[in-house]
Amino acid sequence: MGLAVDLNSDLGESFGAWTMGNDAEMLDIVTTANVACGFHAGDPLVMHETVRLALERGVEIGAHPGFLDLWGFGRRPIQGERPGDVEKLIVYQIGALQAMAAVVGHKVRHLKTHGALGNMAAVDADLAMAVARASKAVDPEMIFVVMPGNELEKAGEKLGLRMAREVYADRTYDDAGNLTSRKLPGAVIHDSAEATQRVLRMLEDGAITSVSGKRIPVAIDTICVHGDNPAAVAMARGIREAMEKAGVTLRPFARAL
Amino acid sequence: MGLAVDLNSDLGESFGAWTMGNDAEMLDIVTTANVACGFHAGDPLVMHETVRLALERGVEIGAHPGFLDLWGFGRRPIQGERPGDVEKLIVYQIGALQAMAAVVGHKVRHLKTHGALGNMAAVDADLAMAVARASKAVDPEMIFVVMPGNELEKAGEKLGLRMAREVYADRTYDDAGNLTSRKLPGAVIHDSAEATQRVLRMLEDGAITSVSGKRIPVAIDTICVHGDNPAAVAMARGIREAMEKAGVTLRPFARAL
Amino acid sequence: MGLAVDLNSDLGESFGAWTMGNDAEMLDIVTTANVACGFHAGDPLVMHETVRLALERGVEIGAHPGFLDLWGFGRRPIQGERPGDVEKLIVYQIGALQAMAAVVGHKVRHLKTHGALGNMAAVDADLAMAVARASKAVDPEMIFVVMPGNELEKAGEKLGLRMAREVYADRTYDDAGNLTSRKLPGAVIHDSAEATQRVLRMLEDGAITSVSGKRIPVAIDTICVHGDNPAAVAMARGIREAMEKAGVTLRPFARAL
Amino acid sequence: MGLAVDLNSDLGESFGAWTMGNDAEMLDIVTTANVACGFHAGDPLVMHETVRLALERGVEIGAHPGFLDLWGFGRRPIQGERPGDVEKLIVYQIGALQAMAAVVGHKVRHLKTHGALGNMAAVDADLAMAVARASKAVDPEMIFVVMPGNELEKAGEKLGLRMAREVYADRTYDDAGNLTSRKLPGAVIHDSAEATQRVLRMLEDGAITSVSGKRIPVAIDTICVHGDNPAAVAMARGIREAMEKAGVTLRPFARAL
Repeated sequence: MGLAVDLNSDLGESFGAWTMGNDAEMLDIVTTANVACGFHAGDPLVMHETVRLALERGVEIGAHPGFLDLWGFGRRPIQGERPGDVEKLIVYQIGALQAMAAVVGHKVRHLKTHGALGNMAAVDADLAMAVARASKAVDPEMIFVVMPGNELEKAGEKLGLRMAREVYADRTYDDAGNLTSRKLPGAVIHDSAEATQRVLRMLEDGAITSVSGKRIPVAIDTICVHGDNPAAVAMARGIREAMEKAGVTLRPFARAL
Repeated sequence: MGLAVDLNSDLGESFGAWTMGNDAEMLDIVTTANVACGFHAGDPLVMHETVRLALERGVEIGAHPGFLDLWGFGRRPIQGERPGDVEKLIVYQIGALQAMAAVVGHKVRHLKTHGALGNMAAVDADLAMAVARASKAVDPEMIFVVMPGNELEKAGEKLGLRMAREVYADRTYDDAGNLTSRKLPGAVIHDSAEATQRVLRMLEDGAITSVSGKRIPVAIDTICVHGDNPAAVAMARGIREAMEKAGVTLRPFARAL
Repeated sequence: MGLAVDLNSDLGESFGAWTMGNDAEMLDIVTTANVACGFHAGDPLVMHETVRLALERGVEIGAHPGFLDLWGFGRRPIQGERPGDVEKLIVYQIGALQAMAAVVGHKVRHLKTHGALGNMAAVDADLAMAVARASKAVDPEMIFVVMPGNELEKAGEKLGLRMAREVYADRTYDDAGNLTSRKLPGAVIHDSAEATQRVLRMLEDGAITSVSGKRIPVAIDTICVHGDNPAAVAMARGIREAMEKAGVTLRPFARAL
Repeated sequence: MGLAVDLNSDLGESFGAWTMGNDAEMLDIVTTANVACGFHAGDPLVMHETVRLALERGVEIGAHPGFLDLWGFGRRPIQGERPGDVEKLIVYQIGALQAMAAVVGHKVRHLKTHGALGNMAAVDADLAMAVARASKAVDPEMIFVVMPGNELEKAGEKLGLRMAREVYADRTYDDAGNLTSRKLPGAVIHDSAEATQRVLRMLEDGAITSVSGKRIPVAIDTICVHGDNPAAVAMARGIREAMEKAGVTLRPFARAL
């Protein structure tokens, strides 16, 4: 039996008259879409269209909630949000997407936090628990997408959530299993062949190899790829094709867990 | 067997640091709350608190969606929204409230459109159908709150929705069953005793009496009262007390239909 | 002495992480830029960059205020704004751009209303007067960009404003001098050569020729071109090059009036 | 010659349908108003009304810019804003208020940062310089309101700005001259008589006395009072009356510096 994995991407990030990325193309590449829910990107029309296209192409969907920060695209760390408040922000966003999915005939299967909210929760146990509680409260079957070893994973474990472990195709890792800083040379991989090689090795090894060579065992459920510019789309497509050629089966994690 | 009716009010209209009305007091007066969903008023924290308090006091809740127009509080008619787009706006807002209700242990039982969106849909058959479709698509059991005779009622009938007919305690009606313009003298009733008398007569008659004296038969399910200022709260309380004294049973329409 | 005219375009319409159009390219083509002021598009960073690039390339700038409606990009007609309120919306937006221009070393020379606000004011004398009053109140030297014959022109005349008359390169006109509806076949011209021919004829004639052949005399100060997609940029460039080849001098209207 | 000082308050913090504080009453109490500029609170209509009332009552005005964060009322620390970006946020907001003041016949005389932006700039030299540069770039005569000893004061000194030193009537100070944490018992003074006594002592001493008794010499130009609830308004009025009774002259700092 060969290797199998999921490819996920953040989609539905347009807003009103503004377009972000190429959702239609990406939905031909990925097996799972993280859909923005209107707080940092996305709006009811964009969400509807994203969910509809995903259903049409057999792509599974999840909520991708962020801070209420359109101007900053959810990328600015906003302090002073109490964990209980963050929980409500997330419940609201999941619910909005659930209803949109329901009217289209699709279903929200997972939760993945966006941008600064995700980065902050990854290292803050209280925030991470708030996110996990929101997920469980809205739907106990919801799959929680986490990076191996971070606070979100720990929170998911505490609450007994179903989880999907994610790695990045285009980023390197340090010995603790965290992404290396984008500011370091080589932290972001721009070559599609190299990214694919890294992904295949991680899948075959069942482990991440850090920049220092340390092997960190991890069950990889999904690979995150980006589609916010033409080069990113091309890279995502390259990774998909190379993986198929290598005999890796691509299928949504929501159907495998 | 005595008369029975519901009292409803628009609540949860605070936003961030800004407070609107006195929800805690109103939730002691009404039997049903229309909860703002974040587009024209309300936010995830306000929604959570409103739903929680409503549950605590046995008040049924519904979604009160409006245009995406915080600054205008949803009161400005916004042209150029296609009915299909309005449908998605409403689906989004209902879904957000449904999730918030679910985590609190409450349930969204009805839909009532807010402000300009409601006024426009009341006289525009296409918009009215869009609202009705959104309601049915999200939850076929959702009760649709309408004013007798308007386009929303017709749309609800076409789609076979459960409906609650609403009258206003503090407004007069013309021969077609529409509210008379606020600009006309006497169109808004400011005296609690007079409002109560009107309400009692409508319930006993099973009809609205227009300003010209015309009798318009209607099954009244709910009376709308306001709570956005201390005088409004006092009037709502006065109406409730007078109705109880007159032997009218006050109970949520969602438990009677 | 040959013909001379200005080319203007709506720029600075990006917002946060979202990009709209190609401002850098368009600023090599036009002689005047209408800069969005943050209500329907644009933000302080985008405004700063647009003004800075315009100064660098000798492009004159004006304020391009719209309704407070990011999601609708200012294109949705919003009813219920009192003219006095519209006046304040515009004052706010002009002021914000004036300060941004001042810190860069540039100057706001004109006012052109955006989208639905412009369309509504073009046919509503009270709104048009509100816009004209805002312009005059903030800076009596501000040039008011109008389409010949509409209510904005009349308002500008009443208040004695300096005015620039504008025609569209890619649109046809009816006998009253108004743009024909986009829904009519041929209303929008997609061929750069044809658009250029039309513009040259209008300049040489000192008149617009309507679709029925009627000649409407008008002193043309500026030609509006678009840059919101690659085809639009190419067309704008084509018009500029053809006009230069035909011996038309291109220079900002603010330096000619 | 007796003592003289200014009383300032943050006003114009309503937004759309939501009212905050009682501006009309506060404008009878204070001599200087810090006017919200639409990013964390305020809107063009509120700004216009605030400026108009201030002019009518001889109250001087200044810009009170904050983060672009309506929902958080500018109170949430937002990381990741580059100082150059903050500079542009502030330029935009000052400009908007300047134009509004101009059309009313008033003038923006000072700049005071709001909420989290102010708190962050008070301890971050780069942010403080960004604020000071914005102030100077828009108007070199603008008065910069600072708390004695903080980074904003240092930035103002570096750029040679005119400055007004501010103390709080209702807060205590530590030995470094900073406000003690609101979480400490006694950090906020709720008694009007006690607050007045503290203010009078500071004015007479020309110094702040810290909670440990340390005397920190400072030239006090203005006393900050609050008006966001009826108790705050009553306290502000009590302070004003007690100061007048004690022979202190109340007049805007902009007319005294």
